[in-house]
Amino acid sequence: MAGDVKRPGKAAPGKEAVVLLSGGLDSATTLAISISEGYQPYALSFRYGQRHEVEIAAARRVAESIGVATHIVMDIDLRAFGGSALTDDIDVPHHAHVEDLTPGIPVTYVPARNTIFLSFALAWAETLGASDIFIGVNAVDYSGYPDCRPEYLAAYEAMANIATKAGVEGLQHLSIHAPLAHWTKAQIIERGLALGVDYSLTHSCYEPGEGDRPCRTCASCLLRAKGFAEVGTPDPALQP
Amino acid sequence: MAGDVKRPGKAAPGKEAVVLLSGGLDSATTLAISISEGYQPYALSFRYGQRHEVEIAAARRVAESIGVATHIVMDIDLRAFGGSALTDDIDVPHHAHVEDLTPGIPVTYVPARNTIFLSFALAWAETLGASDIFIGVNAVDYSGYPDCRPEYLAAYEAMANIATKAGVEGLQHLSIHAPLAHWTKAQIIERGLALGVDYSLTHSCYEPGEGDRPCRTCASCLLRAKGFAEVGTPDPALQP
Repeated sequence: MAGDVKRPGKAAPGKEAVVLLSGGLDSATTLAISISEGYQPYALSFRYGQRHEVEIAAARRVAESIGVATHIVMDIDLRAFGGSALTDDIDVPHHAHVEDLTPGIPVTYVPARNTIFLSFALAWAETLGASDIFIGVNAVDYSGYPDCRPEYLAAYEAMANIATKAGVEGLQHLSIHAPLAHWTKAQIIERGLALGVDYSLTHSCYEPGEGDRPCRTCASCLLRAKGFAEVGTPDPALQP
Repeated sequence: MAGDVKRPGKAAPGKEAVVLLSGGLDSATTLAISISEGYQPYALSFRYGQRHEVEIAAARRVAESIGVATHIVMDIDLRAFGGSALTDDIDVPHHAHVEDLTPGIPVTYVPARNTIFLSFALAWAETLGASDIFIGVNAVDYSGYPDCRPEYLAAYEAMANIATKAGVEGLQHLSIHAPLAHWTKAQIIERGLALGVDYSLTHSCYEPGEGDRPCRTCASCLLRAKGFAEVGTPDPALQP
């Protein structure tokens, strides 16, 4: 890491916020942003039966590096329902170039995944007495998932505000923060680098190969590579 | 069971619906109602760290008795967050009489529990291609939980309708059915008896004693007893 970048700091005291942390580039950046905005992050990850479970190890590294108050990894086995290339016997698509990605909802979409993740975050926020949840979804350089769209997040926030004890008592307004929603992948990376995020610790690939090396040809790898190329910086996770 | 009651029938073919099934009186009745309305139920239960885990065995008995297409029991450990008498080291309140129950949200409320349960139901509905979810919440003889209120369910349904692939493609309208929402406990029991629900198989107690016997003094036991008293029928789960 360059010597002049700002370190995110180690979970300085502040307002508690629950931060969804997958271990990928977007959620690592979101975690750093939450700290830069004065929040004390409680990181939440999920072992949900994903074929790229290596991302849990990445989430632990990122949480340790950036600094969180607590990190919980929940076990929820979405393989019980199937229906996604990430949790079922469906092939993950691979392409040579990012331009080959086709519009529409891809087979890597996991039904209701963000709704499930946000619901656990809501439960934790309520027990913490926190009013803020951060999620690293993005609707620009993204994979076309329904539950990454701003209108979805707005509807979730409206529901969450009457789902809990605070909602009944009218004591607090719960906010779903999606700071990356309207940024390109390059803008996300630039912001993260400015905040000192060590992207060598993150993992984005849907179908890592031997030694957990990124495949470089799934949608997640291609969008990540496009972002680093636009920034003009090599991806530190790909360095030997 | 009286000889002249109608049997619910064994998961006749019909439109698929996901039915949340706790193993209690309300969800058993809801399951029978879903069949009476022509749905083929896919039952979903949760081992969530509840102290009354015996309700999972009740859910299995009820699913078997009433008849479902499939029954999934998901493991999700909400003890990681705590904050409820059902999942944490907080005493379950006991009272001698149902009139002793105080208004307000009790300590047995589990933060965001129904939001989490509905989110898994939404995931399963999406993989099944189902447009209907049944939940046995009730806002009359109930325990004052925020996530049992009709306005909460309406907000959840609105969110769910833009959360999924079907929501993006505008192909189907997802409905959250809460048939018991406006019924008294006595009305619920009367409807269930008419549909042939065997309430001896159900379990409602928050803190069962030896041999999994109901304590008869928690809010759930008291509301159940009030219901059977109003119907003028003994509770078959309490018979020797």
